[in-house]
Amino acid sequence: MGKIEYIKDIAKLDIFRHKRTGIPEFILSIGKSDEVISKLLLRMVENNGVACATKVNAERIEFIRKNIPKKFIFEYYQNARMIVLKKKNYKIKYLPVSIGILSAGSSDICIGEEARITVQLLGCQVFYDYDVGVAGMHRLIKPLKRMVKERVKCIIVVAGMDGILPTLVKSLVDLPVIGVPTSIGYGYGSKGESSLMTMLNSCSPGLVVVNIDNGFGAGCAAYLIAKQSVK
Amino acid sequence: MGKIEYIKDIAKLDIFRHKRTGIPEFILSIGKSDEVISKLLLRMVENNGVACATKVNAERIEFIRKNIPKKFIFEYYQNARMIVLKKKNYKIKYLPVSIGILSAGSSDICIGEEARITVQLLGCQVFYDYDVGVAGMHRLIKPLKRMVKERVKCIIVVAGMDGILPTLVKSLVDLPVIGVPTSIGYGYGSKGESSLMTMLNSCSPGLVVVNIDNGFGAGCAAYLIAKQSVK
Amino acid sequence: MGKIEYIKDIAKLDIFRHKRTGIPEFILSIGKSDEVISKLLLRMVENNGVACATKVNAERIEFIRKNIPKKFIFEYYQNARMIVLKKKNYKIKYLPVSIGILSAGSSDICIGEEARITVQLLGCQVFYDYDVGVAGMHRLIKPLKRMVKERVKCIIVVAGMDGILPTLVKSLVDLPVIGVPTSIGYGYGSKGESSLMTMLNSCSPGLVVVNIDNGFGAGCAAYLIAKQSVK
Amino acid sequence: MGKIEYIKDIAKLDIFRHKRTGIPEFILSIGKSDEVISKLLLRMVENNGVACATKVNAERIEFIRKNIPKKFIFEYYQNARMIVLKKKNYKIKYLPVSIGILSAGSSDICIGEEARITVQLLGCQVFYDYDVGVAGMHRLIKPLKRMVKERVKCIIVVAGMDGILPTLVKSLVDLPVIGVPTSIGYGYGSKGESSLMTMLNSCSPGLVVVNIDNGFGAGCAAYLIAKQSVK
Amino acid sequence: MGKIEYIKDIAKLDIFRHKRTGIPEFILSIGKSDEVISKLLLRMVENNGVACATKVNAERIEFIRKNIPKKFIFEYYQNARMIVLKKKNYKIKYLPVSIGILSAGSSDICIGEEARITVQLLGCQVFYDYDVGVAGMHRLIKPLKRMVKERVKCIIVVAGMDGILPTLVKSLVDLPVIGVPTSIGYGYGSKGESSLMTMLNSCSPGLVVVNIDNGFGAGCAAYLIAKQSVK
Amino acid sequence: MGKIEYIKDIAKLDIFRHKRTGIPEFILSIGKSDEVISKLLLRMVENNGVACATKVNAERIEFIRKNIPKKFIFEYYQNARMIVLKKKNYKIKYLPVSIGILSAGSSDICIGEEARITVQLLGCQVFYDYDVGVAGMHRLIKPLKRMVKERVKCIIVVAGMDGILPTLVKSLVDLPVIGVPTSIGYGYGSKGESSLMTMLNSCSPGLVVVNIDNGFGAGCAAYLIAKQSVK
Amino acid sequence: MGKIEYIKDIAKLDIFRHKRTGIPEFILSIGKSDEVISKLLLRMVENNGVACATKVNAERIEFIRKNIPKKFIFEYYQNARMIVLKKKNYKIKYLPVSIGILSAGSSDICIGEEARITVQLLGCQVFYDYDVGVAGMHRLIKPLKRMVKERVKCIIVVAGMDGILPTLVKSLVDLPVIGVPTSIGYGYGSKGESSLMTMLNSCSPGLVVVNIDNGFGAGCAAYLIAKQSVK
Amino acid sequence: MGKIEYIKDIAKLDIFRHKRTGIPEFILSIGKSDEVISKLLLRMVENNGVACATKVNAERIEFIRKNIPKKFIFEYYQNARMIVLKKKNYKIKYLPVSIGILSAGSSDICIGEEARITVQLLGCQVFYDYDVGVAGMHRLIKPLKRMVKERVKCIIVVAGMDGILPTLVKSLVDLPVIGVPTSIGYGYGSKGESSLMTMLNSCSPGLVVVNIDNGFGAGCAAYLIAKQSVK
Repeated sequence: MGKIEYIKDIAKLDIFRHKRTGIPEFILSIGKSDEVISKLLLRMVENNGVACATKVNAERIEFIRKNIPKKFIFEYYQNARMIVLKKKNYKIKYLPVSIGILSAGSSDICIGEEARITVQLLGCQVFYDYDVGVAGMHRLIKPLKRMVKERVKCIIVVAGMDGILPTLVKSLVDLPVIGVPTSIGYGYGSKGESSLMTMLNSCSPGLVVVNIDNGFGAGCAAYLIAKQSVK
Repeated sequence: MGKIEYIKDIAKLDIFRHKRTGIPEFILSIGKSDEVISKLLLRMVENNGVACATKVNAERIEFIRKNIPKKFIFEYYQNARMIVLKKKNYKIKYLPVSIGILSAGSSDICIGEEARITVQLLGCQVFYDYDVGVAGMHRLIKPLKRMVKERVKCIIVVAGMDGILPTLVKSLVDLPVIGVPTSIGYGYGSKGESSLMTMLNSCSPGLVVVNIDNGFGAGCAAYLIAKQSVK
Repeated sequence: MGKIEYIKDIAKLDIFRHKRTGIPEFILSIGKSDEVISKLLLRMVENNGVACATKVNAERIEFIRKNIPKKFIFEYYQNARMIVLKKKNYKIKYLPVSIGILSAGSSDICIGEEARITVQLLGCQVFYDYDVGVAGMHRLIKPLKRMVKERVKCIIVVAGMDGILPTLVKSLVDLPVIGVPTSIGYGYGSKGESSLMTMLNSCSPGLVVVNIDNGFGAGCAAYLIAKQSVK
Repeated sequence: MGKIEYIKDIAKLDIFRHKRTGIPEFILSIGKSDEVISKLLLRMVENNGVACATKVNAERIEFIRKNIPKKFIFEYYQNARMIVLKKKNYKIKYLPVSIGILSAGSSDICIGEEARITVQLLGCQVFYDYDVGVAGMHRLIKPLKRMVKERVKCIIVVAGMDGILPTLVKSLVDLPVIGVPTSIGYGYGSKGESSLMTMLNSCSPGLVVVNIDNGFGAGCAAYLIAKQSVK
Repeated sequence: MGKIEYIKDIAKLDIFRHKRTGIPEFILSIGKSDEVISKLLLRMVENNGVACATKVNAERIEFIRKNIPKKFIFEYYQNARMIVLKKKNYKIKYLPVSIGILSAGSSDICIGEEARITVQLLGCQVFYDYDVGVAGMHRLIKPLKRMVKERVKCIIVVAGMDGILPTLVKSLVDLPVIGVPTSIGYGYGSKGESSLMTMLNSCSPGLVVVNIDNGFGAGCAAYLIAKQSVK
Repeated sequence: MGKIEYIKDIAKLDIFRHKRTGIPEFILSIGKSDEVISKLLLRMVENNGVACATKVNAERIEFIRKNIPKKFIFEYYQNARMIVLKKKNYKIKYLPVSIGILSAGSSDICIGEEARITVQLLGCQVFYDYDVGVAGMHRLIKPLKRMVKERVKCIIVVAGMDGILPTLVKSLVDLPVIGVPTSIGYGYGSKGESSLMTMLNSCSPGLVVVNIDNGFGAGCAAYLIAKQSVK
Repeated sequence: MGKIEYIKDIAKLDIFRHKRTGIPEFILSIGKSDEVISKLLLRMVENNGVACATKVNAERIEFIRKNIPKKFIFEYYQNARMIVLKKKNYKIKYLPVSIGILSAGSSDICIGEEARITVQLLGCQVFYDYDVGVAGMHRLIKPLKRMVKERVKCIIVVAGMDGILPTLVKSLVDLPVIGVPTSIGYGYGSKGESSLMTMLNSCSPGLVVVNIDNGFGAGCAAYLIAKQSVK
Repeated sequence: MGKIEYIKDIAKLDIFRHKRTGIPEFILSIGKSDEVISKLLLRMVENNGVACATKVNAERIEFIRKNIPKKFIFEYYQNARMIVLKKKNYKIKYLPVSIGILSAGSSDICIGEEARITVQLLGCQVFYDYDVGVAGMHRLIKPLKRMVKERVKCIIVVAGMDGILPTLVKSLVDLPVIGVPTSIGYGYGSKGESSLMTMLNSCSPGLVVVNIDNGFGAGCAAYLIAKQSVK
């Protein structure tokens, strides 16, 4: 007979409880039906006062929204493709720290926005500027100086195609930088592999990376980094 | 002249007959027209009393169903994307053994269901629980304990993205585990390669794997494993 | 502050103990120095009476052996590339079940042997025959008939290049089959991807697969399958 | 200045004229507008008495047909996805040789048909049978025996997923075999790479291969092989 | 604190100004909404008198056009998939140099056209001929001779599938050749990797390459090459 | 119990006997020890009067040769990397047909030679010329004309890097052409994928392909094609 | 003429100076001769008092060391494959923060050590434990509890093969986690792609990743994260 | 019968003669024996007064040199891995134009040198500077300004790992830029795919690319570009 008696008390341990961190759970909507997403959102908002779903295409919103009672605040961030559901009295408790977000081109805004909404929901302030790519470095300098002045603890840099921007930013500042490759482009390597590879092979040591289009993951990591300063 | 006289009697041998195993043939619907699927289903149900088609999208059902005479029982399992066609008097003969099925996330339910329907049609009992992923290990322990108690002979574990769950399950029980990677996710490796690779490189020796999204194949293998105990 | 108090008692639980299964731990020698391998072997043989290291090239044997006290029995299986270390009084306890192993070509013998030694160390009898590939199907039939007669509970089939053999075997018998792709060959797909892909896409449902060259993993899985019949 | 005077008379040489071979030119429709396809078809039918376009989806037929004057015979082979356009008095001149075509599953019929129409347009007789895959080898033997009896000069074997059939056929007959991988399936390697790899790594020496889904190319090669016997 | 004071005056430097080169900026439309494209076009046309967007599908044109005031000339090149927006009085200043463009098949015309419009907007004359592939080399010689006679400074060669044409052209003339792989085709390597690889591995030394389908990039490079002769 | 009684007489059928074709078996030496190769060679030469091993590196020859009794003729073709072992009285019986072999560069000679030795051992005459690549097309014309004059039934074309030569040859003659990609080169695609892809995507319909570096397989196929004319 | 006057004063700006961060430059030894490495080390140690080279194989040490004057302290960390060169009076100035390092198996120690030496040279304390993989989770808990108690600001987790450990650690603690995939293993995905993919697709949000085997990069990132707490 | 009469006079046409361009032929040494290389070098030096072989490892030099008569000047450029063989009286005729070469890191010097020797042999002056990577942009500005001042017609930029440098250079100057990816690095994408992808996906339009490590090809292209200005 198989044996697992030795784990009999594990259920009580509640090993992987995220709630203790004050972070609302997030639902990845890919591969889930509208119905399942609605049910998961409701369960979470009841428990936590807030709930969030990522990668939700605009055309699904109506179907999901009609399953949600009016007593909750239903927000849809179209660029970020995120649903945020809140109890009426829910308030985000902000930490006294901030992070920065930059994106290389206007095509990368969606992922930048996903990161921004994530960070803000987690309770961290954000300074951001989009479309500051290599072809317009002067547009990069201004927001970068502001971020340094505001003492952001980390910068998320979103970039597709050649994925150069995170390396450039990392070369200019003395801060942790999280690169987010995006799947914008065409041709060889254009589903994000090109920018992912560029970032992983960066000659600017200390750049860290999340998966292609994973603005949400970058936001969570940035929040955790910022949080270390105030524990 | 080419020579194949030496195989003249092979046709009579009927080498690859599945029927002797009591297993109904299954039709993979991908790349087949509604008409072809209907015809194959009918031929099989006439021969075996039962027939089954896999990977059938919901929008095709109407077109297929109208080709099927009313005298057969036509069932469509939407999550599993399977059609089961039976003669009215068809009864599955269950073996006195069972297997277990777990899936990591609610996005993996479809493939879990494909495995479940397959196993049940083959005549094996199933204990299953979906959405027991790493983020909620306490949800894993309960069904796992039940499976051990029910003396399942094998556990199918369905998981996409990082594909970690089969390794975890394998580490906890003294049973054969079949990993089924799924094509849920986005970014680098997200069409299932990531979870396939994780399972093939598992540090928990003894985990075996089927192709991405192949819940049907996992079901067949699990059935064969379970069957060895009652021969 | 980070919080992990809730797992304070986990260490005592000893969750992932393999010892209870009667299986000696195995050491994957890749990436480890001769010194580290020797130390790990010694620690295990002291605890379990037996120890084993896999993927050990012949030229390393002398260096490892000289670190091992004479009081242990040191065996090296050159084809299998495995070291087995035993206390003088160690005896394998065999289960009253057996499994079968077949390999397609004489180039695949090494991986077949790795599987065989693994299964035998775990306490299961093995019927095996190598070099029964497609070009000599008559060589396949004889061992296959013997395996069925001996009521093996599972067949491991090792094959490189086109990787066809496991599918053929699966088509002929009513038993679980574990395919092991090997990295023999040259050209496109010849590092084992070709045979891995063939097996994963097999039209013979129920074939399961382990990673390329992973004879050890196949052996562990076959053992677990066989074991279900005698629990 | 760049220099190319030395090629001044090349145009007159008409180096790459296919016409001398009696082969009508073929139009690959992928990436071409309906208008361009129509124009090319017309130009060819005027010159050669016959014209053909491959990979034409059914929904494009109406648009193309309306550009074609009624004085031509317009045929659309839906399974083969080919348009054949002929002058009313056009007659195919058949060579006194034939080739064979087999496909593994009913999903592979489309590519088999593409090969068949191609071979017939080129003036070669065809013996064919579809759906003779590994799971029903008895269905394979009958057509194979007929082909040998009819002294076909070459066999085209179409197969997706594990791509095993061409190797099996090659093992059974003393004839050139052309494998055509197809893009049917799902999971790792299922866009045809799996069957392409299997065929390229075949242990049955002498199997040759064309690109995935390239029934047309296989047909041309088979025709050329058959033609050598009657020159 | 992070430090970037040392770059305080970089913004004034306007490092990456393209305007000084007389080149209008180009907008890659992939991943941008109709609204964003319209806004960027308007900003550019106001600044430069001309603006251009690439990779714009025909079905988007209406939505974009309605955001553009009538006082600008709005042109859409359907084959090239480019929008060109001009002030009424805008005139291209042509350099007294020219370049050549060839494409292998009629399926490659779109990318050839993208290159042509780009080069012309940049102020360079173009001699071009499409559909001069290997199967009709006589069609190649005539335009090639004209290009040499017209003293083009560079030839862009667009080719999909086997991607052979750029190597052939390079073998025939004493001019820089820029290969542009296209994503036309089907099967293994048919998303442009095949033609990209062929060009990168060309045995005709001196061939240079841009990304798959990047007619725009080829046009820019050709312009820069041509421009060196008149500086 | 598993059931395979129905195949009880298959062994007697000797399904896959190659001997009937007059073809000596060939041994792929990759992954086999010197000892195993020697043993297999001896077994075959005893049975067939001739034996052959492919892909044998020069440094292994001495070790293998010393296992072979002097009564056999031992030949090693260094370029082809093949051992041919014959009984003293063995004579190849030549068919009254021939095939042609061409290679693109002097780096591809080895694979060309492997094909040549294979074809000759099988009993077919060969006309060959190596180093006739694109950069010296005038060197191509002469042997090509001779081959046509000698009425070869098929041409094997060996090419690495850009792999263009088979397509060129196919465009020039009305014969079956077998492309053999080679693993010569460096950079992206240079392990043979580049030339394999070029050949699979060839715009010259009717080109067939074998795996990278598989001169042996090409030789077998060419022999079978030639043989059809004399059956 | 090309124009770059506008950047005339950039050289004075010294944009990318790392020195201001107190971080010694590091030399990646791959692709560099012993001589070049020696020269670079000397230049750096003269400027900074300390210098370091990564990925230096043991067999190169003697050749490099003999180029280094005795007045410097030359240290070689064999596991980490790093050279550290110091002026005699050089002292690392430690920040009052620490980070943690864990590795999954004893094969991953080398990369763990590379990270450790890097972090310590940068002036950060390290708590580390190696060989805490999934098969021995009880070994994981103890060091993890110590790290939390010591208030490490970040944990580096090194893992090859299935790459599961970083996700597990991330699930247990409320800290930033940096995953480092390693190239240990064999078979499909075993050059590190498997563990890289697992980490990028992790279901534990907030995990960030560096390239395969890049212990150095992970160390730099961890240092920067830790540093934010004390600015 | 196959027909090629129509090409009977092609040999006289000498279509692909490189000699008319004044360019010595180059020998790629990969896959060729020392003997073959020597023979080819001698044949070329006799014809052209100069001969060159690329990718020649240092350990082969002695074997090749001893086949070369003393009457020729034998030069070996170790970094460039090139042999240049000249008649005693051979003089390079320099065009009155120049090109520039930059490399990102000291690991990329070898490929930079291959480009430099190539360009100089072809008769073009070179301004070059190596090791001007992103981490030391001030080192980039000085040589870049010199190149602009010297009116180079084109800049070759060699870079491995993240491959960012060509894009940066392209953004700074109004000249054609040829990117050469190198195979320096480790981890995902480090065999040059990463830098190749970055360059192909560059956001700086007009960058063109050659294959990984192909300094020779870049040199040929740069020469052809420069040459257009003086025709």
